[in-house]
Amino acid sequence: MEYRVTKDNLERFCTDVFTKLEVTEENARIISENLVCGDIRGVKSHGVARLKRYVDGIKNGLIYPNAKPTIVKETKITATVSGENGPGQVAGDFAMNLAIQKAKAHGIGMVTVNKSNHYGIAGYYVLNALKEKLIGISTTNTAPLAVPTFGRNLRLGTNPIAFAAPANKHDNWVLDMATTVIPRGKVEVYDREGKPLEQGWAVDANGVGTTDAASVLKNMLELGSGGVLPLGGEGELMGGHKGYGLSVMVDILSGVLSGGAFGKNVYAKKDGKVVPPNVCHFFAAIDIEAFIDFNEFTTSMDQMIEDLKESQKATNQDQIFVHGEKEFNKEREYLKDGIPITEKVMTVLDEIATSLSLESVQQYR
Amino acid sequence: MEYRVTKDNLERFCTDVFTKLEVTEENARIISENLVCGDIRGVKSHGVARLKRYVDGIKNGLIYPNAKPTIVKETKITATVSGENGPGQVAGDFAMNLAIQKAKAHGIGMVTVNKSNHYGIAGYYVLNALKEKLIGISTTNTAPLAVPTFGRNLRLGTNPIAFAAPANKHDNWVLDMATTVIPRGKVEVYDREGKPLEQGWAVDANGVGTTDAASVLKNMLELGSGGVLPLGGEGELMGGHKGYGLSVMVDILSGVLSGGAFGKNVYAKKDGKVVPPNVCHFFAAIDIEAFIDFNEFTTSMDQMIEDLKESQKATNQDQIFVHGEKEFNKEREYLKDGIPITEKVMTVLDEIATSLSLESVQQYR
Repeated sequence: MEYRVTKDNLERFCTDVFTKLEVTEENARIISENLVCGDIRGVKSHGVARLKRYVDGIKNGLIYPNAKPTIVKETKITATVSGENGPGQVAGDFAMNLAIQKAKAHGIGMVTVNKSNHYGIAGYYVLNALKEKLIGISTTNTAPLAVPTFGRNLRLGTNPIAFAAPANKHDNWVLDMATTVIPRGKVEVYDREGKPLEQGWAVDANGVGTTDAASVLKNMLELGSGGVLPLGGEGELMGGHKGYGLSVMVDILSGVLSGGAFGKNVYAKKDGKVVPPNVCHFFAAIDIEAFIDFNEFTTSMDQMIEDLKESQKATNQDQIFVHGEKEFNKEREYLKDGIPITEKVMTVLDEIATSLSLESVQQYR
Repeated sequence: MEYRVTKDNLERFCTDVFTKLEVTEENARIISENLVCGDIRGVKSHGVARLKRYVDGIKNGLIYPNAKPTIVKETKITATVSGENGPGQVAGDFAMNLAIQKAKAHGIGMVTVNKSNHYGIAGYYVLNALKEKLIGISTTNTAPLAVPTFGRNLRLGTNPIAFAAPANKHDNWVLDMATTVIPRGKVEVYDREGKPLEQGWAVDANGVGTTDAASVLKNMLELGSGGVLPLGGEGELMGGHKGYGLSVMVDILSGVLSGGAFGKNVYAKKDGKVVPPNVCHFFAAIDIEAFIDFNEFTTSMDQMIEDLKESQKATNQDQIFVHGEKEFNKEREYLKDGIPITEKVMTVLDEIATSLSLESVQQYR
C-alpha cells in the first residue's frame, strides 16, 4: 500500500506538527519546506521519513524549538552565526539568506554557523540561491559515522557538499552529495532487507572491509569502531584518501571556521547525558555578474549539459545524467501526481499526529 | 643511478631554461618555483619531469612566453583574469596574489582565469595563501581524459581541487587531489611497467571497465572514447557519480565562471591545427579573522589533526595520515638531502640544456 499526498498538504501537516511543539509558525514552515523538499525531489532519506527524528529531537532537548539564530560576527560579505541550538533548518535558512543578501549587494556572501542541529537536505539551501540567480554552495558536518583512511574509529560525518549553478533552457545544475561512499540510511535499508553491503562501503570494528550491514549499524549507533567509508572506499587504492580529504575540508569550513564542534565531537551525548550536538554549517552565494555576463554563463551551462548528455553512452547504458536532473524530474512528477508515502512512513506520521492531537495527513485537504 | 639536486640549483636551472625561451626573468622564476614545488613535495608527476612539456608548449606556440595576464573584470573582492595564452603558472600566480590582496583588504578574494595553460601543481597556489595566514582554494580544468558516469567519450579533465588551512603546532592541512580516481601519469607508469590497471580506474572505448593500460593511454591521446574514471569509479555503485559531479563543479568554477573553455573544448588542437588550449582556473582566499579568531582556528586545526592521527588504526595499518603530511615530510627530507632525479629525467633535462646551450643542472653550484 502506498499513499499519495500533495506537496501542499504534506507541508501544512508538518508545519502543524512543529507549531504544536512550540516552534513559531514561520520557523515551522521553513523546517517543513526543507523536509518536503527532500520528498518531492525523490530523496526520501531526507524527507518526512525523518519527521520523527526532529520531533524527538525537540522533545528530548537536543533541539530548542524557539531558538533564534544570532549573528556573532559580521562584515559586509561574511558572517558567523550561532544557531543557538535551534532547528538546523532555521539556522540554515537564516544563514543562507544572509549570504544571498551579501552576494546581491557585494558579489559574494559567505556565512558559517555553529551550535546548530541537523539541517536536513543540503540541496534546499543552494536551490534558494538559484532563485536569486546566484551560485549557491553549502556544506555541513554531521554526527560521526565514517572512519578516516587506515583508521577504525568514527571521526567524520557524512559531511555533504551541495553546489548549484543556473542554466538557461535546461534544468539548473544541482550537486548534493555526501562525501562518504554511502549514507547511513543505505546501511539501514540493507539491514532491513537482509542484504549484504557491497565491499568498499564500510569497515568492521577492526577497520577492515565488511559486508555485514547489521554489525556496521550497531557499531555506528554505539559510536565505537567501524562505520562507513569515505568516497573512494577502503585504503588509498581507489582514492579513499580523496573522499577522506573532502570530508575534512567540509568539516574545516563548517565546524572549524564557525568556531563550533568538529569531527568526533559533533554528537548529542556527553558524559552519558543528552546535549545539543553543536552541528555546524557553511554557506556561500556568488553573484555570477561579478565575473561574467549572466546570460553568457547560463548559455555555457546549457552547452556543458548538452555536451555531457549527448555524448556516446557506455555499453548497456542508455542515458547519461547531469546532476539535479533526476530530482527535477521527480519534482515535476510528484507535483502532478502527489508525493508517494509508504505504509510504514504513513504509520509513523499518523502516530505523530495522534500524539499531538492532529488529524492524519490523509485528512488534509 | 639516481641524482640529487638542491632545490636552489634545480630552480635556477629551470629559470635559465625559460629565460632562454623569451620568458621574463620574473615569470621564469614563478614557473620554476611551481615545478620544483612538485618535486620537493614528492609529487614527481608535477615536477621537472614535465619540464619538456612546457618547453615544447612554448616552442609549438601553445604557450605564449611573453604574455602578461590582464584583468578583464574586477570588483573589490572578485576578478576575472585573462591569461592571454601565457604560461599557466604565471596567470595562476597573478590571480592567486590578486585573490590574496582582496582577502586581506576585504575578507574574501575570488578570481577566475580564462585563456591560460596547464598551471602545474594546484597545491602551489594554496600554499601561497597560507603564507598570508589565509585559507586558500584553487581548482583548474584540464584537457579531457575522463568519461562522465555511463558515458564513453572524454568530456572532463582530471579537474583537481586544492584546499589549504593553517594549523598551529602541526603542519598546515593541504588537500591537493584530482577528481578522477587516478591521474593520467599513473596510466603511463603502469603501461611502461607492463602492469594491468586496477578494475575501477578506467574504461575502454565502449565505456566498459578495463585493465589494459596501453589501450587506455592510446584512447586518451587520440581523444576518442575511453579514459580514466571519476573518483568513485565505474557506474554509481561506489559513488562514481559523485566524482563526476565534483569534476563538473570544478569546471563550472574554472571554465564557465571565467568565460573560457570547458569540458571537451579545453584542448590544444582545433581542425587539426595546434592552438592555445584555453585552460581555465579558479582561486579563492578567505581571511579567517572575518569569521573567528585566528588562534582559535589554528588551535582547532591542531585538535582535528590529533583526533584523526591518534585514533585507532585499522588492522595491519600503523599510521593514519592527514593531508599535506606526506608532502611536508618529503620537503624536509629533500631540503636536507637534495631532490632525487632519476637517470631518465636527468637525460631529458640534459637534452633540454644542450638544445638551449645551457650547462647540465649537475654543473650548477
